[in-house]
Amino acid sequence: MKSYQEMSKEELLACKAELEAAYKEIQDRDLSLNMARGKPSSAQLDTGVGLLDALTSKDNLFSEEGTDCRNYGVLDGIIEAKRLMAAVMDVKDPENVIIYGNGSLSIMYDTVSRSYTHGVAGCTPWCKLDQVKWLCPVPGYDRHFAITEHFGIEMINIPMLSTGPDMDMVEDFVSKDPSIKGIWCVPKYSNPQGITYSDETVKRFARLKPAAKDFRIYWDNAYVIHDLYEDDKDTLLDIIGECEKAGNPDLVFEFASLSKVSLAGAGIAALACSKANREETLRTMTIQTIGYDKLNMLRHVRYFKNLDGVKARMREHASSMRPKFEALLHLFDTELSGRGAGSWIAPKGGYFITYEAPEGCAKAIVQLCKEAGIVLTKAGAPFPYGKDPRDSVIRVAPSFPSAEELAVAGEVFVVCVKLATVKKLLGEAV
Amino acid sequence: MKSYQEMSKEELLACKAELEAAYKEIQDRDLSLNMARGKPSSAQLDTGVGLLDALTSKDNLFSEEGTDCRNYGVLDGIIEAKRLMAAVMDVKDPENVIIYGNGSLSIMYDTVSRSYTHGVAGCTPWCKLDQVKWLCPVPGYDRHFAITEHFGIEMINIPMLSTGPDMDMVEDFVSKDPSIKGIWCVPKYSNPQGITYSDETVKRFARLKPAAKDFRIYWDNAYVIHDLYEDDKDTLLDIIGECEKAGNPDLVFEFASLSKVSLAGAGIAALACSKANREETLRTMTIQTIGYDKLNMLRHVRYFKNLDGVKARMREHASSMRPKFEALLHLFDTELSGRGAGSWIAPKGGYFITYEAPEGCAKAIVQLCKEAGIVLTKAGAPFPYGKDPRDSVIRVAPSFPSAEELAVAGEVFVVCVKLATVKKLLGEAV
Repeated sequence: MKSYQEMSKEELLACKAELEAAYKEIQDRDLSLNMARGKPSSAQLDTGVGLLDALTSKDNLFSEEGTDCRNYGVLDGIIEAKRLMAAVMDVKDPENVIIYGNGSLSIMYDTVSRSYTHGVAGCTPWCKLDQVKWLCPVPGYDRHFAITEHFGIEMINIPMLSTGPDMDMVEDFVSKDPSIKGIWCVPKYSNPQGITYSDETVKRFARLKPAAKDFRIYWDNAYVIHDLYEDDKDTLLDIIGECEKAGNPDLVFEFASLSKVSLAGAGIAALACSKANREETLRTMTIQTIGYDKLNMLRHVRYFKNLDGVKARMREHASSMRPKFEALLHLFDTELSGRGAGSWIAPKGGYFITYEAPEGCAKAIVQLCKEAGIVLTKAGAPFPYGKDPRDSVIRVAPSFPSAEELAVAGEVFVVCVKLATVKKLLGEAV
Repeated sequence: MKSYQEMSKEELLACKAELEAAYKEIQDRDLSLNMARGKPSSAQLDTGVGLLDALTSKDNLFSEEGTDCRNYGVLDGIIEAKRLMAAVMDVKDPENVIIYGNGSLSIMYDTVSRSYTHGVAGCTPWCKLDQVKWLCPVPGYDRHFAITEHFGIEMINIPMLSTGPDMDMVEDFVSKDPSIKGIWCVPKYSNPQGITYSDETVKRFARLKPAAKDFRIYWDNAYVIHDLYEDDKDTLLDIIGECEKAGNPDLVFEFASLSKVSLAGAGIAALACSKANREETLRTMTIQTIGYDKLNMLRHVRYFKNLDGVKARMREHASSMRPKFEALLHLFDTELSGRGAGSWIAPKGGYFITYEAPEGCAKAIVQLCKEAGIVLTKAGAPFPYGKDPRDSVIRVAPSFPSAEELAVAGEVFVVCVKLATVKKLLGEAV
């Protein structure tokens, strides 16, 4: 099959006429579908709903250390929940895990906010500094960038490679510029590309020699157990263990949650870090809260029991996600491969597929999809300040629609990608 | 009965010998009891445990507006939870209520923190100001003062009168000093005295003319429905309504929770405020979280159904609390009335009794109790920086111990109060 680039103007015009007709036909179908959000589907939530039955008034409501989970108290979470989250996060010492409420995003917000108001490790609070900068591997997660933008932190793009962030650049920035205080990382099945950091990348992170004593790696291990294939998983080194080995125990904050494991709105979330970071975190937490919901922690422990229980759940989860990823990737292979209309990576886990459209086409594709009734994540969203310098990256989220809906949405997406590419090549406004 | 002040030195010495013997006897009993924390007792939690059965996998898990409460989304809480909390807080418009996680303390922390990092109503963020001050009615709630202290805010004591804070002082400070940005209030059954602000006090709050545009009243309505007597309740004017009437709609943030209604560690909490304050709050919240646990909101609504359901629960709650308050107050009346050993207020609700010991005796009494196995709230705790200028106020928390334990603890407390008073009068170190 000829790529669009190899076509003559006449051939392109013929393609365009055909695609416009197809697009018109799609518009007439009055579709309303959504591939924007990394939300679990209803079917997926159905498999986790037993959580609600895992704790009733007839059950023992005491933690194994004898705490009445109905009452106030226990700032850092019950030990059995720490143990479960340590196992999920592949962290050795459950004591260095703190259990929070229903989302890891607010732990990250709180960690940045605390650093801004009270500083890190005795350093000047960031609100008293003229300049605070942050490294942002791109494409990345829009809600990460929203936090740093909210605090007026200057964000610097770091390209993602197939092994993770460009570590030459990371090392260079971090070792030279003391105003760089952090980096956002989604180290396994990264949002949105689905890239897992190589062992070498993790080791280089652990060996960083930051110019700023208060530099921290924000390691958002959101998809730590979100594999699509039982026999073909990516593996990720334990960053906390690697930092210890490298003599940098305080370099990293690691975040995770069970939101995309049990029920998206009612999971439990965790922070893992060194003893010193933990103690500093608790000094603020004790002002901020009397403690998070211990009954929901107990509910999760009773429901999953242990890591095996979590893994069993994730296999169900994968069997619901896998066909969606595969259908979309198959469609891309069949319809878009070799057409010069963009590229993509086939991830082995996570929640997203990144489509890299020809330069200057992402906004147009998202707009075309929107006008055909398919909502995609806003073009630019995976970049700081919403600015994709090449206007190329589109985050596709296959999790929420049903397989049938996804087949339709995928078909529309393909038409929009082709149409935008052809118009671009013809020099028309896209 | 003679007061200690009326006694001769010989009489006092005789009293002292008797009290020391009684104290020695108590110490030999190896007691271990706690009247320190405003925690519900196990018996009280037992009455609320049905909450856990109010939502199972078999139930409809959609909100009345059609939101799947298992999934992500709905930043400000489901409407039925807003309606319930609006009824509890006596707030007219449920739309101006935001539902949070399991505690109101963290809403207050977040509100101060946001003001510190991002400012209020377009004013300079407090972290950029040289000085931020706060009014603290005393005695008050130690966790309030801990928040303002954590942010380096200078706290100014305002005496509590029987009608609430001394409003002459409040008006004077607030109208003259633009560095005063807030005041902590527990307007009904105040912590720790159990005083309810009079209508006139509430109206004067609503009519404040602050020098600072970003001054806000922090109205922690923690005990809004925590009455001890069905037929003898304190009533509190709706501050939000009063502020509207006074043309000051943005003057107040009101906080409340169901922690001491359903289950202490697993309730839901709420913020009520004006539309402008709400919008400003949500602009930060949308960065901070994807939304709080909607299943726990739904669980509360299904369990309580409406305000009548909440009130029924609070009557059970009162029947457990009332005998404890009455037993302690009866003991004080019998053993301490007319002795010149201090004074107290009999509250009609809330969680505490405040004992005002003779000046310079509070620390000594708490220490004597401790050495006899009775833990009390630290002396000084109800004051900013933990400093009671008269060393007089002791917060007594009758909620957690059983009636039997409380009888013992009360007896010990009485002996310690008397002993400290007598030693003080004798000029001995207490």
